[in-house]
Amino acid sequence: MRNPQMNQSRPSLVAPLHGQLCDPPPIWLMRQAGRYLPEYRALRARAGSFLELCYTPDLATEITLQPVRRYGMDGAIVFSDILVVPDALGSEVSFVEGVGPKLTPLGDDAAVGQLSMARLAEHLTPVYDAVRSIRAALPVSTALIGFAGAPWTLAAYMLEGEGSKEFLRARTFALRHPDTFGRLLDLLTEAVVAHLSAQIEAGAAVVQLFDSWAGVLPEPQFEAWCLRPAGRIVAALKDAHPEVPVIVFPRGAGAKYAGYVLGVGPAGVSLDTSVPLAWARDTLGDVCLQGNLDPATLVVGGSTMRREVGRILATMAGRRFIFNLGHGVLPETDPDNVAELIEMVRTPRAEADGA
Amino acid sequence: MRNPQMNQSRPSLVAPLHGQLCDPPPIWLMRQAGRYLPEYRALRARAGSFLELCYTPDLATEITLQPVRRYGMDGAIVFSDILVVPDALGSEVSFVEGVGPKLTPLGDDAAVGQLSMARLAEHLTPVYDAVRSIRAALPVSTALIGFAGAPWTLAAYMLEGEGSKEFLRARTFALRHPDTFGRLLDLLTEAVVAHLSAQIEAGAAVVQLFDSWAGVLPEPQFEAWCLRPAGRIVAALKDAHPEVPVIVFPRGAGAKYAGYVLGVGPAGVSLDTSVPLAWARDTLGDVCLQGNLDPATLVVGGSTMRREVGRILATMAGRRFIFNLGHGVLPETDPDNVAELIEMVRTPRAEADGA
Repeated sequence: MRNPQMNQSRPSLVAPLHGQLCDPPPIWLMRQAGRYLPEYRALRARAGSFLELCYTPDLATEITLQPVRRYGMDGAIVFSDILVVPDALGSEVSFVEGVGPKLTPLGDDAAVGQLSMARLAEHLTPVYDAVRSIRAALPVSTALIGFAGAPWTLAAYMLEGEGSKEFLRARTFALRHPDTFGRLLDLLTEAVVAHLSAQIEAGAAVVQLFDSWAGVLPEPQFEAWCLRPAGRIVAALKDAHPEVPVIVFPRGAGAKYAGYVLGVGPAGVSLDTSVPLAWARDTLGDVCLQGNLDPATLVVGGSTMRREVGRILATMAGRRFIFNLGHGVLPETDPDNVAELIEMVRTPRAEADGA
Repeated sequence: MRNPQMNQSRPSLVAPLHGQLCDPPPIWLMRQAGRYLPEYRALRARAGSFLELCYTPDLATEITLQPVRRYGMDGAIVFSDILVVPDALGSEVSFVEGVGPKLTPLGDDAAVGQLSMARLAEHLTPVYDAVRSIRAALPVSTALIGFAGAPWTLAAYMLEGEGSKEFLRARTFALRHPDTFGRLLDLLTEAVVAHLSAQIEAGAAVVQLFDSWAGVLPEPQFEAWCLRPAGRIVAALKDAHPEVPVIVFPRGAGAKYAGYVLGVGPAGVSLDTSVPLAWARDTLGDVCLQGNLDPATLVVGGSTMRREVGRILATMAGRRFIFNLGHGVLPETDPDNVAELIEMVRTPRAEADGA
């Protein structure tokens, strides 16, 4: 039942992104590798810092494979972090246990001017080595997913120096210093294209762009800081790697998902938990949708989870769709709930409905 | 220029809520009384705890009047807090300086069973005394706004015991114990109706319902926990006080604002910062819109603020509208920026456009 071999005959994750309707839909989960898995916690206890995991190809490979071994998802996302890009550009990044990421906040134009693409490829070589090693170890039918943080989200961390509810320091800096901020966004756009391209060249069959803090912005800044850079990134990747679909994730964009998808032109769009699915289905045009089970529902499990999964599958029937969560798997999640979720999504609907 | 007397001849805040188009639109600001004002900080330094301010009619009155004296907004919102309702029902609430609210988290059905409406009216008498005293002191043309937290938002604090990014504890409790949670929502719905009615009877001409944490919920829970209780509250108030308009504020509802407004049937809806205004204007039907200048823009001020204010006014021209922020005034705000904002909103558009 949890044998990844059953995956061999399934359509690949990339099929719906390339225009093919799949029933049942493929499934993977954001943060499917992580703290809810005892084998991850065991490895984590023996390893060094979080960033060392990301920069050690053998460890990143092992962690990426852990959930695929257990559950045989249709996609495996390389174990890494969006902040490896700021780290590679010269912002010093560290992860404080129980607190989150810390960066030396960019304070002025000079600090932004000192960031450089020069070291990016070399600094991120361990990530690309991990991608190659994961690709070699994965079942052929499991798609390898590369990813990057979107420019606004990376800039928000770099200016704020840490996570935040509202990223007020970053946002006021951006409004007060539009030229410096524009240079930062341009540099990050270039870096994200390079980072995603290198992951594709190392074996990623799909890439996802995470704009985790798109939701804190009003419309004009959302368009200038999220939509436009994402459009440039998607266009550059279509040009260089037309066979590799890009999934975008402007988390919290609300009604602005519609203009974003139209303006950016991605192969797929990931919907956060709060997006009403029927609205997305009817409004977002002919793009592959991905999402959006509430991670809290996966924690609760049981009949609550089954009801929600049934609702999502019914709403998305006949639509190009990838089953996923609306946000990452929570550390509190029971691994058995993940197994039940995947089995339920893969059970033909007529059978699931008791026919 | 900052003389509240100029307000005397202006249409009242309630006009657009009652169907009248006003040009320029009336203006008030969420958290217009608060830490950005030196006179508030001076009073705060001499006073006791935050809740003592809320429960001392003279202090609550003085704080409510401070921004009206300076700026002559069209509305004054009673200085209070959404958590006075849980406090009155028996959840012990305190505010820890620099941390936020703390409540004894509701752990089980018995704890919910011990909450009671019995003490509500008596416990909240100082709030209603403050409303009466504010009403007596305000210029006749300044509308007094009462408010309450919506049931889901209050339940979230009561179950979580504190503020949270995701309210995971509250949400998993609600999913695991639907009967207990349903009783809690019902009790809070009843309490909110009583609290808003009492504020109306004491002199509030408008009331606003704050569902500050509506944005963390997926669609089915949003409908059951936010939309339905708000619909019951609005219906009960329409019945008891048909002349008093209700403004609803399901913060972060995204595309779900549309179904919410349709289902709840309020006189007005407050839009958070992230809502695209043209979408709201074209989608939300014939309801009075309120919002949604980014509070960060008010911190930055200058040409950035003027551009954004101009955009909002242009988008809302010809629409029933109340100018407000998309969230509360930030403590970092320069009081002079508030003065400039209000002057700009009140300047006739032709003149503002240089005609």
